[in-house]
Amino acid sequence: MTFRWNTRILFVDTDASGRIHYTALFRCFEAAEIEFFRSIGVLHQHPGVSFPRVHVECDYRSAIFYDDPLTIEVSVGRIGNASVQLKFRVLKNDAEAASGNVVMASLDLATQRATAIPQSVREKLAPYAGVAEILRQS
Amino acid sequence: MTFRWNTRILFVDTDASGRIHYTALFRCFEAAEIEFFRSIGVLHQHPGVSFPRVHVECDYRSAIFYDDPLTIEVSVGRIGNASVQLKFRVLKNDAEAASGNVVMASLDLATQRATAIPQSVREKLAPYAGVAEILRQS
Amino acid sequence: MTFRWNTRILFVDTDASGRIHYTALFRCFEAAEIEFFRSIGVLHQHPGVSFPRVHVECDYRSAIFYDDPLTIEVSVGRIGNASVQLKFRVLKNDAEAASGNVVMASLDLATQRATAIPQSVREKLAPYAGVAEILRQS
Amino acid sequence: MTFRWNTRILFVDTDASGRIHYTALFRCFEAAEIEFFRSIGVLHQHPGVSFPRVHVECDYRSAIFYDDPLTIEVSVGRIGNASVQLKFRVLKNDAEAASGNVVMASLDLATQRATAIPQSVREKLAPYAGVAEILRQS
Repeated sequence: MTFRWNTRILFVDTDASGRIHYTALFRCFEAAEIEFFRSIGVLHQHPGVSFPRVHVECDYRSAIFYDDPLTIEVSVGRIGNASVQLKFRVLKNDAEAASGNVVMASLDLATQRATAIPQSVREKLAPYAGVAEILRQS
Repeated sequence: MTFRWNTRILFVDTDASGRIHYTALFRCFEAAEIEFFRSIGVLHQHPGVSFPRVHVECDYRSAIFYDDPLTIEVSVGRIGNASVQLKFRVLKNDAEAASGNVVMASLDLATQRATAIPQSVREKLAPYAGVAEILRQS
Repeated sequence: MTFRWNTRILFVDTDASGRIHYTALFRCFEAAEIEFFRSIGVLHQHPGVSFPRVHVECDYRSAIFYDDPLTIEVSVGRIGNASVQLKFRVLKNDAEAASGNVVMASLDLATQRATAIPQSVREKLAPYAGVAEILRQS
Repeated sequence: MTFRWNTRILFVDTDASGRIHYTALFRCFEAAEIEFFRSIGVLHQHPGVSFPRVHVECDYRSAIFYDDPLTIEVSVGRIGNASVQLKFRVLKNDAEAASGNVVMASLDLATQRATAIPQSVREKLAPYAGVAEILRQS
């Protein structure tokens, strides 16, 4: 399964090259992540746990301009004991304009230490894990 | 007295018009404010007090481009019981390219209510108040 | 008439106060403006004209937090010969959390000089002008 | 050789976790890149060439807070025919708080196609290439 979220690029997210500034896609990733978590019922459900990013990356394949309609696809990559990788594809006119991933750690706010991903979260993420991840874990 | 702080405009702060996006100047105002407060010894000195903005505004007079060197001038406007106005001028090639102001309230973090500006802060701000403000208060 | 547009606040738009950073509302204003212009059919219709901001301001009345659902109301203020003011209200739980306005000039990209607001744009903006503005012009 | 650039984190670059938002480091990377290019005399020297990013990534090792003084170290990674990788280390209290890299392509603005990195740029970048890169190319 893949979660899809549609957006458009604001003028503030462009730069003097006439295209979007590359950091704008990380805003899109974050917005898509929030809506993905809302859709599977985990947003705001674990107030004692924070999810700081420990790794982010993005590859840019084609130019994106002001007001371009984009679809952000979200799927789940590696689910570790205390971390999870979200994978993103950015589609413009049905072609992949960019792709990236974000690895977030699971941090106990009281102890400020890594903590296991709650089992209920793990179960809700599992259907969005890619085939590669499923094979890897089995 | 006027506090002066120099900066340059990053590429990320431009937009597809080829100029800076107008919100970039608010980043400059914030950076200049922090260095102004550091210079007069009030930064990080009042951990129980927060200064949320209650009003901001800016007028834009001439175009600003990527990597333009700017000088931000900071002075103090109206000092109320629980609020203070900071005034900003943006100089490009010694001419005023923009000007604005920010009014911040003094908020007690424990009670989440307005609290008087500490007297020591008031005394450190006073030398930077403009003539109009000094006349108004006398 | 008033144009309404709904949004939510991203985590990236909060700051260490736990609330949104004040500049985040200017992003909301821009997004609402784009959708307002799209709704009345003027977006992307005047490629030779740019609309740089010459004045912006915002008043903040109550705290806004991560993921708060907001409604941005857009109406039209003063319509000058070569400038137009857009007015914004930010509603949270049906109460006004902030309000502001943006004045944009009409700039001929070829000459880089002010140019009259096209009559067709003027006619599409007029129904959204507030009562105060209508009285002022009659 | 390594280029070093010092900065501090603004309040706008923090988020409600109390730490910086992860995207803030990409702003630091860009600012450090500009000053690195200025220092070696290539900034603004090739107006017909643009350098869009084709890949960016960052690893986050320790928390960074508002006003933390940071040193950004810039070195050069792989130099291809029409691309160059810049590598960044973020030092806080002399310890590595984050590291990342950015790969930029060399784009001819007239043709909108990839173009070879100018030889003069290549020569100015070379002293900052890491040992691994030097070995790889020899």
